Amino acid sequence: MEPKIIRNKEEMRNWSRSMRAQGKTIGLVPTMGYLHQGHLSLITEAQKHTQLIVVSIYVNPGQFAVNEDLSTYPSDLHGDIEKLKSIPNGVDVVFNPQNLYDYGVEREQLKEREKEKEGGVVSCLEDEEHETWIRVEKLEKGMCGKSRPVFFRGVATVVAKLFNIIEPDVAVFGKKDYQQWRIIQRMVRDLDFAVKVIGSELKREEDGLAMSSRNVHLSPQQREQALSISRSLFEAKSAAKSGKNISSELRRSVIESIEAAGGKFDYVEIVDQESLQTVEEIKNGVVVCVAAWFGKVRLIDNMEIS
Amino acid sequence: MEPKIIRNKEEMRNWSRSMRAQGKTIGLVPTMGYLHQGHLSLITEAQKHTQLIVVSIYVNPGQFAVNEDLSTYPSDLHGDIEKLKSIPNGVDVVFNPQNLYDYGVEREQLKEREKEKEGGVVSCLEDEEHETWIRVEKLEKGMCGKSRPVFFRGVATVVAKLFNIIEPDVAVFGKKDYQQWRIIQRMVRDLDFAVKVIGSELKREEDGLAMSSRNVHLSPQQREQALSISRSLFEAKSAAKSGKNISSELRRSVIESIEAAGGKFDYVEIVDQESLQTVEEIKNGVVVCVAAWFGKVRLIDNMEIS
Repeated sequence: MEPKIIRNKEEMRNWSRSMRAQGKTIGLVPTMGYLHQGHLSLITEAQKHTQLIVVSIYVNPGQFAVNEDLSTYPSDLHGDIEKLKSIPNGVDVVFNPQNLYDYGVEREQLKEREKEKEGGVVSCLEDEEHETWIRVEKLEKGMCGKSRPVFFRGVATVVAKLFNIIEPDVAVFGKKDYQQWRIIQRMVRDLDFAVKVIGSELKREEDGLAMSSRNVHLSPQQREQALSISRSLFEAKSAAKSGKNISSELRRSVIESIEAAGGKFDYVEIVDQESLQTVEEIKNGVVVCVAAWFGKVRLIDNMEIS
Repeated sequence: MEPKIIRNKEEMRNWSRSMRAQGKTIGLVPTMGYLHQGHLSLITEAQKHTQLIVVSIYVNPGQFAVNEDLSTYPSDLHGDIEKLKSIPNGVDVVFNPQNLYDYGVEREQLKEREKEKEGGVVSCLEDEEHETWIRVEKLEKGMCGKSRPVFFRGVATVVAKLFNIIEPDVAVFGKKDYQQWRIIQRMVRDLDFAVKVIGSELKREEDGLAMSSRNVHLSPQQREQALSISRSLFEAKSAAKSGKNISSELRRSVIESIEAAGGKFDYVEIVDQESLQTVEEIKNGVVVCVAAWFGKVRLIDNMEIS
C-alpha cells in the first residue's frame, strides 16, 4: 500500500479531521526515520488499535543538544517509504514535515534575539523563535536526563506538537526508550491529552542487540562488543529470578560485563517501572536500564523484571 | 438560557466531540469564577466567533504559590450561573470540575512521595501527583513572573489541560492579564494547538478601576486609593501622545502617583507589546504594565500605547 506523504501541518490536521468526521480512528507512530524492524513492530501494534495509521518521520532538533549527533543522525526517507509499503495492511499517511519550529518569523528578527540569549544548556533550536517547553519534572531527571539535560523536554514538546497536529486516538511508543515511554504516558495524563499511549516491546537483532537506528554507526568490532549489554541484561534477569535480589550486585555485574567488552557505561540503573526511582532490593516490577558508549555511539537497552 | 453544568472531564470532552460531529464550532472562555462585567464581555466577544460557548469556572491551584491567596480567592458559583443566564444568547456549558489534578492515585502513595520532594518554589499542588508543566521560557520571566514564579507555568498548564478536555475552536482571554494573554498565544503557536486565541479589551469600572474579582477585597478607602493606577496610566498615555517618549520618565510618574496614593508598586514596566521586553524610548506598540498592592490586595492593570 502506497502511503500518502504529507509535509504540511495544516494539511495533516485537515486529513485527520476529515477521517474523524467519517468515524475513523487514527493511530500515530512517531519516529525519527531510518526505520528498522523495531519501528515496523510499533506499526503492527498500532494496527491492532485503530483503523488508520500515521507514521511521522521527523528528526527533532529540539531534543538534541548542540554537542550531540543531530548532524550525523542517519536518514533515508526513500528507503523508509519502501519499508512502509511492505507492511501488511500498510500505513495510510507518512507525516514528514520540513521544520516543525518554523513560525514564519523573519530571520533578521531571530538574529537580533540571538544576541540577547542567555547562558545555560540549550538544544539545537537555540537560535529559533520557539520558547515553549514541556517538562515532566520528576521522571525526566534520572538516567538519560542526567547526561542529556535537554532531551526529554525536547521529546515531550515535539510529541505534544504531533498530538496537536495529527490528533490521533492512539500513539505507540517503543519500550526500548523506556524512560521516554513513561514520560509520554505521564504527560498525556497530566495534560489530559485525548490520546491512548501504548508501550510496545523492545525488539532485538538475532544476536540480542537492541534494534536502533544508531546501530548502523557501529564498526564490526564495536557491534560485537555491544552485545555485552544485552548479554549482561539477560544474565541479570536470570540472577534475579534465581533469588539474587540486591540491586547493587546486579548492577555491578552489568557494568563489569560492559567494561570488560571495551564499552564505557553512561548509566546502569535498576528502577521501579512506574516511578523510575532506584530500588535497593528487587521485589516486583523493576526495570534494569543501561546506556553505554562504544566508540562514538551511545546505545541504550533495558530489561523488565516482573 | 440555562447553561448545562458539566463537572467531569470525560463528559465535557464527549459533549464537545458530539457537537463538533454536528459541524458546530465551540468557543471557550476560561475563568476562575466570581464573574464580573469584564468576564461577560469576554463571552460576548466569544459569541462573535463560534456557535457554542463553554465557560470554565475553576480556581486553579497550580498557579498559586503556597503563600498566595488561593484560600481567600472569592467564589460564588450560584451567582455566577445567574449572571451567565442573563447574557443575551447565553452560554451553552459551564465546565466546573472539582479537581483537574486528581488522577486517582491513592493518598497513601502521595504521602510517601511527598517525603521525597525537593526544595525550590512550589505551587499549591506540591503534594499532588501532577508533575508536568509547560514553560513559556522568555515571556514568563518578567513582570508578574518575577514576583510570582510559579504563576505562568500554572496558567499555561491548566489552559493546555482545558484545551485538551474541551477542544475548543476559539478561546478568549482578557487583555487585562496582558502577559498571560501573550503567553497563551505563544504556547498555542509553539505547541501547535488547533485553537484560535482572541484577546479581549480590558474593562473598567465607571471610575476607571480595572475590573477584577479581587476588587471585592478592597476597603472603600483602598478602592479610592487604587484609582491612582488607572489615573496614572491614562496620564502616561496622554503624555506619550504629546511627545514624552522617555520610558523612565513616564514610569517614574506612574510610580509616584501610586505611592502618593498609599499603594506599593510591585512593578511598573513599559514593554514591547509582542516580546514584553522593556523599551527605553516609546515608539510604536508598547504597553505600560502595572502591579501594585493596596493593603493585602494585589491589583494589575495596563495601557496599550499604539
